[in-house]
Amino acid sequence: MPQFNENDLTAAVVKSFESTPNPRAKFLLQELVKSLHDYVRRTDLTFEEWEYAIEFLTRTGQKCTPIRQEFILLSDVLGVSMLVDAVNHREREGATQTTVLGPFYVGEHKQMPHGSDISPHNVTGEKMFVQSRATDLAGKPLAGVPVDVWHADDDGLYDSQKPSYATHGPTARARFVTDGDGRFFFRTILPCSYPIPTDGPVGEMIVQTRRHPMRPAHVHFLVNAKGYEPLITHVFIDGDKYIDSDVVFGVKDELIAKVEERSDPKMPDGKEASAPWHLMTYEFRLKPGGGMAPKPMAARESEPA
Amino acid sequence: MPQFNENDLTAAVVKSFESTPNPRAKFLLQELVKSLHDYVRRTDLTFEEWEYAIEFLTRTGQKCTPIRQEFILLSDVLGVSMLVDAVNHREREGATQTTVLGPFYVGEHKQMPHGSDISPHNVTGEKMFVQSRATDLAGKPLAGVPVDVWHADDDGLYDSQKPSYATHGPTARARFVTDGDGRFFFRTILPCSYPIPTDGPVGEMIVQTRRHPMRPAHVHFLVNAKGYEPLITHVFIDGDKYIDSDVVFGVKDELIAKVEERSDPKMPDGKEASAPWHLMTYEFRLKPGGGMAPKPMAARESEPA
Repeated sequence: MPQFNENDLTAAVVKSFESTPNPRAKFLLQELVKSLHDYVRRTDLTFEEWEYAIEFLTRTGQKCTPIRQEFILLSDVLGVSMLVDAVNHREREGATQTTVLGPFYVGEHKQMPHGSDISPHNVTGEKMFVQSRATDLAGKPLAGVPVDVWHADDDGLYDSQKPSYATHGPTARARFVTDGDGRFFFRTILPCSYPIPTDGPVGEMIVQTRRHPMRPAHVHFLVNAKGYEPLITHVFIDGDKYIDSDVVFGVKDELIAKVEERSDPKMPDGKEASAPWHLMTYEFRLKPGGGMAPKPMAARESEPA
Repeated sequence: MPQFNENDLTAAVVKSFESTPNPRAKFLLQELVKSLHDYVRRTDLTFEEWEYAIEFLTRTGQKCTPIRQEFILLSDVLGVSMLVDAVNHREREGATQTTVLGPFYVGEHKQMPHGSDISPHNVTGEKMFVQSRATDLAGKPLAGVPVDVWHADDDGLYDSQKPSYATHGPTARARFVTDGDGRFFFRTILPCSYPIPTDGPVGEMIVQTRRHPMRPAHVHFLVNAKGYEPLITHVFIDGDKYIDSDVVFGVKDELIAKVEERSDPKMPDGKEASAPWHLMTYEFRLKPGGGMAPKPMAARESEPA
């Protein structure tokens, strides 16, 4: 006959998952029960606090749309996303460091020719030339590798956050394929630091806890070479005011690039520059292995419920 | 300069909440970060598993409506609701045991005269007479106390789960106010065991983990006397097949009532009975104190987001 005290209850819930066919699912659920129960006991959680949590989680789910993922944002600001990244990349062996995917990867980027300006609509930003290269751990160039890049504009917004996305299509978002020497290069604008969306429950939490909502300026890269681990990372711009206090804890020393201010009349590909401009140079080293590139959010959201 | 290893990262996230003005909110958030991070480290959570969790939580939030609360259901089947109940009711001092509110309390029950039949539309159920009383810890009757009662019908559904709710109004749901001797009584049908809703993510989890979705038959009571702790509980019907394996872990020995099968031609209030009928007798003992009765779900859901 059941009559659970605080500890018996936990044992009974753990036991209820005993027949779960998938051993990994069983382990994850049983550990989840232990973690949640330990939290409630340790904090003596009140009914009002529990009710607040139920409402918060409900609102977080209801804020999600095919192009907005408030639960990923919650995971990000609680450092959970970066920790999942960390435990899955314990041994880098000289490979480029990884960081969060973030909620603005929409996937299926359109391939563009090297040298393209991916931010033609962003008239207000300062011009930047990005030159990059993908190699293996020994520095051998990796040719024909698709690289997705995306970043925020001069207003701190990603293209997908703006109403114009539907009509204008992607901006500051493209795919390049490395040449025979592993290289790719493109034009864009210098991104700036920006706040995460603050009009949802996660933003409210950031404001209420007196944290700032800012991410330091960065460009996202997803380098996906056959036979190598997909590399999901950012390159951060050195000197940013928020480089030491990224709201999602995504910065790593090795991912910070010194972006040079240049006034040469020509950019590295020999074409005219409207001075001054900025030069970002960064090389990616990939680790042998496999794994799936992340699904873009739209694909995730349209899966059957 | 940041460059977090697995443990530094947790310390950095905890520190980010350092300026939270409300000390209790700060404590709860910092402990939450520790619990979540400990879980990720302990399980070596993969990206695919993290993504599954994000999707699951999103779908759970999106399944909620003004009359359906899938996150409460999740809390219930993980034993979290009962644990919150347990840590908030450590010392009962002889007072009646508490159990979960459940997701079907709609609140603002309509007061009905003693003896009313609260299930007039439920022609298929077996008739039950409920006689009850509210007292203090010494057994002194508490007069004029509002008591909300609600239970599932013979199909295992609450009135609010059916389309007819909008037109027929409440069924198997009412408020009674105790008389001078602390008593109240009413007619209804014998409830049966029933499954929690299985058409959402929580139900899917129950099915996938080979748990059964059943709750043993019970009647909900919310006894709310001025100067006493609001008593939220169920009375379970002895002999139910699921009494030892309630999917939400809500059963306590003391809350199980022997419901008698009767064939007397008159019910306890002297009115005619259509034999056979059932008699449920239960007394509630309230603990001095205060506290708010729970908000009904509709009130919770209509709060500004």
